[in-house]
Amino acid sequence: MTNNNRLNQQLAFLTEADKLKSTLRATKLCDGSRRENSGEHSWHIALYAMTLSEHANRPIEISRVIQMLLIHDLVEIDAGDVPVHADYDQAEQLAKEQAAADRIFGLLPDEQSAAFRALWDEFEAAESNDAIFAKSIDRVQPVIANLETNGGTWPDFNVTPEQLETRVGVKVSRGAPAVWAILQDRIKAWFSITR
Amino acid sequence: MTNNNRLNQQLAFLTEADKLKSTLRATKLCDGSRRENSGEHSWHIALYAMTLSEHANRPIEISRVIQMLLIHDLVEIDAGDVPVHADYDQAEQLAKEQAAADRIFGLLPDEQSAAFRALWDEFEAAESNDAIFAKSIDRVQPVIANLETNGGTWPDFNVTPEQLETRVGVKVSRGAPAVWAILQDRIKAWFSITR
Repeated sequence: MTNNNRLNQQLAFLTEADKLKSTLRATKLCDGSRRENSGEHSWHIALYAMTLSEHANRPIEISRVIQMLLIHDLVEIDAGDVPVHADYDQAEQLAKEQAAADRIFGLLPDEQSAAFRALWDEFEAAESNDAIFAKSIDRVQPVIANLETNGGTWPDFNVTPEQLETRVGVKVSRGAPAVWAILQDRIKAWFSITR
Repeated sequence: MTNNNRLNQQLAFLTEADKLKSTLRATKLCDGSRRENSGEHSWHIALYAMTLSEHANRPIEISRVIQMLLIHDLVEIDAGDVPVHADYDQAEQLAKEQAAADRIFGLLPDEQSAAFRALWDEFEAAESNDAIFAKSIDRVQPVIANLETNGGTWPDFNVTPEQLETRVGVKVSRGAPAVWAILQDRIKAWFSITR
């Protein structure tokens, strides 16, 4: 009976999570056909982390990184996705995300709720090795998608290579410098053609 | 230089993987708004596995299960998704999936390609504890989605509770019997209302 209660709570959380498939991001799919949603984005970056783990510049536990990435965007069900290059009220967004974390992780049984929340808090804090690498990877995938779709959202936001360096490069370099080095070359090539 | 070659191969694989977001499944989102794609499905079931790991009926390594689920559907980029309740040529589908695995995992550096392929082969064989649990979880999520969307694809395929038992229940029970027990109750309740 208690086991059924636990399972019902867990299934309610997983059904709620389905809504992340309807949260749209600024980035488009690599074929340019439509905007990406945060559910499929979460899958893709978990696969990125799994594939690129050797490029972490400090010791990481890949299992924790992947689990962090699987849950990192769930708060967007309530708070929405904020594009990296958009102007927005950071304090307001942070408050929305905290409230969303309370509600969504709160659907789980108590100790599991606490564990998932701790993992999300760790990601947000971006201080542990695992969180630093996870944050790096989260920033890599949209760069690739933009490069694949003729600059993607960069022209919309009038993004310069210098802005990419400060808004994206610094974060990617912190956890996966070799990956940023290769992206820098591709970014430089792209901007040199289009400008 | 060699490191750059590795990274270029890995990024080519990850860009190819983006196409899984355009492979449509029979199942709809829980709000019924559209069909689910195999990319977001892969995220969702990895989250299912992470959340429901305690219900595995044999010892599992959850990190391996999650990684298996992240890559399990990549072959659908070439071979497409086959609905559980559809009629199809199994040998032909199997051949397509093997060829797809050769091509897609073949984009990676050799030893990583072999490691990913071995994980996929293990999932397909459904013999190890990790693969048995992964396969169970893969079958749970569509049942929930169908229950949330007024039977979802069941009416389309004229599915009976007995068919659900043999096509889905046997597989879910093999790795996560407690989860199937609770779904059986929900399935029974749904069919008793609609028939």
